Amino acid sequence: MILYGYGLSSASYRVRIALALKNLPYESISKDLRAGEHRLAEFLRINVQGFVPALGLDDGAVLTQSVAIIEYLDEIYPTPRLLPAEALARARVRALAQLITSDIHPLNNLRVLKYLENQLSLDREARDLWYRHWVQTGFDALERWLVRDAATGRFCHGDAPTLADICLVPQVFNARRFAVDMNPYPRISAIDAACRELPEFQAAAPK
Amino acid sequence: MILYGYGLSSASYRVRIALALKNLPYESISKDLRAGEHRLAEFLRINVQGFVPALGLDDGAVLTQSVAIIEYLDEIYPTPRLLPAEALARARVRALAQLITSDIHPLNNLRVLKYLENQLSLDREARDLWYRHWVQTGFDALERWLVRDAATGRFCHGDAPTLADICLVPQVFNARRFAVDMNPYPRISAIDAACRELPEFQAAAPK
Repeated sequence: MILYGYGLSSASYRVRIALALKNLPYESISKDLRAGEHRLAEFLRINVQGFVPALGLDDGAVLTQSVAIIEYLDEIYPTPRLLPAEALARARVRALAQLITSDIHPLNNLRVLKYLENQLSLDREARDLWYRHWVQTGFDALERWLVRDAATGRFCHGDAPTLADICLVPQVFNARRFAVDMNPYPRISAIDAACRELPEFQAAAPK
Repeated sequence: MILYGYGLSSASYRVRIALALKNLPYESISKDLRAGEHRLAEFLRINVQGFVPALGLDDGAVLTQSVAIIEYLDEIYPTPRLLPAEALARARVRALAQLITSDIHPLNNLRVLKYLENQLSLDREARDLWYRHWVQTGFDALERWLVRDAATGRFCHGDAPTLADICLVPQVFNARRFAVDMNPYPRISAIDAACRELPEFQAAAPK
């Protein structure tokens, strides 16, 4: 398999964690988002959106969109599970993941920050306020949710990492980069720390 | 089941379509987002995020996040399928859905438009430019993708509606509300029209 990604892309980071947890070997091709490499015609033939991550399979098929890729990997390589076996638990894990992938991350990725700077002429301070606002709004709800269900274990759901943790760790990494105060989020921080003790999460982290 | 929703909420609209396609009866409780009803303490006990949709099950469990809810419904009530049987096809449908649910909709929902108006003091024209920019960026890629794979049928994937169509129709509805020119998107428009011919999509549409 070939993973088209970028170190700091948190959606790529999610897929790297999933591949590491599944112990799947892959070739890595980096697309430098800041240099616009993902918008070149050659890559648009691989992914019409020009986004990373994209996962090229051995038969030439290309998967896109991080959660869709991870769900695929979990269906084809079921060990270890990244989603629980029972439907209600699967729904909880998917909802925790979706809080991050739909309600936090899309508001803060590079193309949005560029629009704020270039089209709306926001200065760095206003841009960083925007960034932290959406992380904090999302983490406020996520912390309450995880505390309410704290009996479920060391990770977001139970005592093994799932899709929810795979989405959480890159989001916490981003929050730290943008100086979000993590003190109000002890449960999120503890789960993030538990994940980062695992060699699979370490191997997938941006260099 | 109880669906906590709001007519114009496109994430609620997705779940209404899924429930209609599955022919599942439910009680509907409306939370007026513009009046802030979703932020009341009573509802925050049901959904820590205070968002709609939330789906209350008969045993008292509450599901949140539209895609997680629809995946759950598809697992528990498998007929008709909202995801194909084969893993690669499932990945394609999930990726099409994620393009809409992560790359378009989160940038344009009510709380973001309010931030643009209140915190960034954008006027209506700049706000609408923002709105259309993200719809058009997403639809440009989606149209190319759907045209490239047009042999797959009348809908986004094959000849029956899937999760991808369930996400597409509310997004096209929103695009029209904000006067996005749909002429560059004949394939998206044809799929949207095919869906809206079905009584299940009609029953789920905002009044």
